[in-house]
Amino acid sequence: MALDPFTGPVPPIAGLGFTGNPLDRADRLRQDPALLAQSAAHPEARLMVLAGLDPPLARDGLDWQPMAEAGAGDELLLLGLDAGAPRFALARPSAPGQRPLDLRKLAGLLSEVEAGIYAQARSMLGWHDRHRHCAVCGAPTRAEKGGYLRRCTSGMCGAEHFPRTDPVTIMLVIDGDRCLLGRKKEFPRRSYSALAGFLEPGETIEDAVRREVMEEAGIRCGQVRYVASQPWPFPSSLMIGCFAEALSDAITIDSSELEDVQWFDLDACEAALAGHGPFVVAPPLAIAHHLLKAWVELRR
Amino acid sequence: MALDPFTGPVPPIAGLGFTGNPLDRADRLRQDPALLAQSAAHPEARLMVLAGLDPPLARDGLDWQPMAEAGAGDELLLLGLDAGAPRFALARPSAPGQRPLDLRKLAGLLSEVEAGIYAQARSMLGWHDRHRHCAVCGAPTRAEKGGYLRRCTSGMCGAEHFPRTDPVTIMLVIDGDRCLLGRKKEFPRRSYSALAGFLEPGETIEDAVRREVMEEAGIRCGQVRYVASQPWPFPSSLMIGCFAEALSDAITIDSSELEDVQWFDLDACEAALAGHGPFVVAPPLAIAHHLLKAWVELRR
Repeated sequence: MALDPFTGPVPPIAGLGFTGNPLDRADRLRQDPALLAQSAAHPEARLMVLAGLDPPLARDGLDWQPMAEAGAGDELLLLGLDAGAPRFALARPSAPGQRPLDLRKLAGLLSEVEAGIYAQARSMLGWHDRHRHCAVCGAPTRAEKGGYLRRCTSGMCGAEHFPRTDPVTIMLVIDGDRCLLGRKKEFPRRSYSALAGFLEPGETIEDAVRREVMEEAGIRCGQVRYVASQPWPFPSSLMIGCFAEALSDAITIDSSELEDVQWFDLDACEAALAGHGPFVVAPPLAIAHHLLKAWVELRR
Repeated sequence: MALDPFTGPVPPIAGLGFTGNPLDRADRLRQDPALLAQSAAHPEARLMVLAGLDPPLARDGLDWQPMAEAGAGDELLLLGLDAGAPRFALARPSAPGQRPLDLRKLAGLLSEVEAGIYAQARSMLGWHDRHRHCAVCGAPTRAEKGGYLRRCTSGMCGAEHFPRTDPVTIMLVIDGDRCLLGRKKEFPRRSYSALAGFLEPGETIEDAVRREVMEEAGIRCGQVRYVASQPWPFPSSLMIGCFAEALSDAITIDSSELEDVQWFDLDACEAALAGHGPFVVAPPLAIAHHLLKAWVELRR
C-alpha cells in the first residue's frame, strides 16, 4: 500500500556514506593539555597522516602510523578513542604531481567505519588549512584543545575560532507519484540527483528547502519532512535530507546552477535504482540515493 | 491517548522566534552589480541600520531608514524583497556606553516578521564584522554579491569566504513520562531547559545529539527524531530541535557546562508550561519551549 511520504513511517536508512564513525570524541581530553600529551604518548595511540587531504591507504584500508611519524612542529588533531586507544590525524602537503583521489574510488577503498573517521579528519584538517590566519585581524592563529579551537596569536585580538560545518539542504521534491531531479553539467552522463543548496543565515531548514527549490527549478513547495542527515567532508558540509511537497509543476531551470531538471515517475525511479532506468542514480555513498530509495519504498 | 514521541504525529509548532522572515532573498539580484545598484536606487528601497548589532527601534517596531542614510564607504547587505521593495542593512558601531539589548526585551519589541528579518541582518552583519580579514592569508577582504561573499583582496590569494551558520542540536531527552532538563549557572533562577550543543565536523545530527547528551549528562540515547529548526542569530546558529530516547537513567553532570540536570515528570512539565511548576520553562522565543510543549501535548 502506498504510504504518504509526509506522515508515513520512513524506512530505515542504512549504508549512508561517512556515517560510520565509531570513535568516542573524548571532549574531556581536549580540555586538558596534560591529558592530551598522555594520550599522544599512549602505547596504542595511532596517527592518520593525510596527503593533501587524501586518506593514507594501505592494501586493506586506512594506513595508521605510529605517533613517531609526527614532527615537533606538527599540530596534532585528536580524533578520539577507539576502544580506549587514542587516534590522531595531521595533514601534509600533497606529493608533487599528486592528483586528488576520485570520490567514487574512495567508496571502494575504505570500510564504512574508516570512511566515517576519515570524514572527521578531512573536514577538520581542511578547516585548519584554511584558517591559519585570524579572520578578525589577520594575525596568525594557532591550534589549541586538540585541534578544536584556533586562537589568534595577536595580544591585541586573541579571537577564538571554532571548526566550521556548513548545513546544506538536499530535497526530493514530490508531486504524487513523480519526483523532481536535476543535473549539473559536470555530473556523469545521464546522472540526475536531488536538488540541494546551502542554508543561509536566518533560515529554518524548511525555509531553505523551499527557497532552493524555487530558485533552482521554479517549483513552489509546501510541507517539508526531514528524513536523514550525513556529513559530507568536501570540504565540510552537513547534508540535511528532506522530502518536499510540490505545490506547482511547471519547471523553470536556473541554468547557472543546473543543466536540466525533470519530473520522473515512480516506474522510472524504480528502474533507475535497479540500474536500468532512463537516468543514472547518485551512488549509495550519497544521501540523494537514499532519499530516492526511501520514497520508492514508501510508495510501493 | 498518549502517543509515541518517536512515531506519533508531532503537533504543529507555531510562534518559534526568528522564523517569520517573509522576504524573497532574491539570489538573482546578488549575482549582478547593475541589478544591485538598481535595487539600491529603487524609490521604495529601505535600510535597516544596526548599532553594535542591536536593531534600530521606532515606537512601533523596526525603524527603516531611506537609502540616503548609507555613506559612500558602507558595504550594503541585500536582505531581499518585501513585495518587490528592496530591503538592505548595514551595521554601525555601538554608541559610546550603549549596552546590548536584552534578548527577552527583544521579543516584546519586534513582531514575528520583524524578528525574522532582524535575525537575517544580525547573523550576516555579525559574520561580516568578524571576517574583515582572510583566514587563509590574513589580507583584508571585501564584500561582493550583495554581502553574500567576502573575497580576499590579495592578488596572490583571492580566497572566497561565505557566510557561516553553525548547526546546534537541541534535544528533549525522553524516558517514558519523564524528560531531562538542565540549567547553566547563568540561567535565570529556577530555569531549566533542553540540553544543547554544537554539531561537529563529520557528525550526523543523530550522532551529535547522542554525543552531547552523553557528555553533558552521562545518559545513553537510542532513537532520535527531528522535530523543528530555528535560526538563532547570537551569533549565527541553526538550532536543530529533536526528541531523543533515553536508554539509561543515572545522571552524571558535566559541571563545566551545567549546574544541574534533572528528570522532570509530565505533571511537573505541564504545570511549568502553565507558569506554576517546580521550574521555569524557556520563553516561547526559544525552541526548547516548543519541544517541551510538543512532548506534553503528545503524551496527553
